[in-house]
Amino acid sequence: MDKSFSCPSGSAAPGPVPKDYIRVYSMRFCPFAQRARLVLKAKGIKYETINIHLKEKPEWYLKKNPLGQVPTLETPAGEVIYESPITCEYLDEVYPEKKLLPSSPFAKAQQKMMLEHFSKVIPYFYKIPTGRKNGEDVSGLEADLKEKFAKLNACLVNKKTKFFGGDSITMIDYMMWPWFERAEAYQFKQFLDGTPELKKWTELMLQDSAVKAIMFSPDAHKAFFKTFLDGNPDFDYGL
Amino acid sequence: MDKSFSCPSGSAAPGPVPKDYIRVYSMRFCPFAQRARLVLKAKGIKYETINIHLKEKPEWYLKKNPLGQVPTLETPAGEVIYESPITCEYLDEVYPEKKLLPSSPFAKAQQKMMLEHFSKVIPYFYKIPTGRKNGEDVSGLEADLKEKFAKLNACLVNKKTKFFGGDSITMIDYMMWPWFERAEAYQFKQFLDGTPELKKWTELMLQDSAVKAIMFSPDAHKAFFKTFLDGNPDFDYGL
Repeated sequence: MDKSFSCPSGSAAPGPVPKDYIRVYSMRFCPFAQRARLVLKAKGIKYETINIHLKEKPEWYLKKNPLGQVPTLETPAGEVIYESPITCEYLDEVYPEKKLLPSSPFAKAQQKMMLEHFSKVIPYFYKIPTGRKNGEDVSGLEADLKEKFAKLNACLVNKKTKFFGGDSITMIDYMMWPWFERAEAYQFKQFLDGTPELKKWTELMLQDSAVKAIMFSPDAHKAFFKTFLDGNPDFDYGL
Repeated sequence: MDKSFSCPSGSAAPGPVPKDYIRVYSMRFCPFAQRARLVLKAKGIKYETINIHLKEKPEWYLKKNPLGQVPTLETPAGEVIYESPITCEYLDEVYPEKKLLPSSPFAKAQQKMMLEHFSKVIPYFYKIPTGRKNGEDVSGLEADLKEKFAKLNACLVNKKTKFFGGDSITMIDYMMWPWFERAEAYQFKQFLDGTPELKKWTELMLQDSAVKAIMFSPDAHKAFFKTFLDGNPDFDYGL
């Protein structure tokens, strides 16, 4: 697990990336950055992590990634790649060990379409806790999210596979996992009781070595998420 | 150019896709569907087009693509692929004639990052004309769009190339083109006077055989766009 504090505004720019390594600019609790870190770990790529203070971004970081988001990859040649699905596909192409995306163009397109559907689920993971905190009625949003979970469950039932791309973990599982790792912190865990295949998937994911290596405990997620909802995210929580 | 009327709600579902063909579900004036049609044409793929009435979608279409959008591809094997960047990448992988995406993973990632940036420009193409129609002050939005055009212009200046991926047309050019084809209809054409390299790119794009084969005239775009802004888009305009 990464133990380095986040670089704030005014910090010095890091030097070149060491030979044979890839660098990932991350934030320890960012689910999008976690996607890239899961892929790096699952593929056994040698990498170093530089954490970014997302509320006070270093000036040098915005020169690398004008969007200022994480993850961003940097290579020893100074090449820069950002946007989580783009970084993950890049890693899968450049490092041929343990391919995570299927080689069939249609199967690959299916994973991308599924990712597109899932990208429309993600906002609920934030809207519901924020609404709850503000004392709003979130029952409609909760019903929507339960329906999305039911669709994911039906997907596994129809495919008759343990994971979303087959009976072993592939890219799409790592792309979706970070939000489910936070299900308890977001108070969504009980929603999984209505979707047994999806629940089983989360249990199987927790047995994966890359997931285990990269994950935080539900308590750590809870503690970070509280600071996030309070408007003062503690990016260095637990260090 | 496609001459088939759009299928409305209640219409009969089409039969299987003929052998050796690919089918594209489209709407004649949809810029996203145009991306797929440009790629099909540029690569010399044999295809047939079925237009969809996007305001009264046929029930069978929503079974193929639950998002109900265009473009959607269908193969003779009944495989279905949607979301314009996914359809275009699928076509580029399955039909190896005239590759449009670079083979280098980094160059491919660069095109995808640029597409991501461009996806944030697209909303301006609708917000500004809608705001103008409603008599709102759109000067701020116009200034933003001019700045986005200036960035695209700078990109060509820095790269010292005619097109966005080099000195010949590649995928990223076809992904961006449909909105520039509509610049006159959207009353943005004069914005290009401040960005000479970008303007030159639009002129070079107009000489491309796939662009020429698929495009509509500025007058056709204007006429369709008027019906669109009025809230009753005439998907079959000109037939």
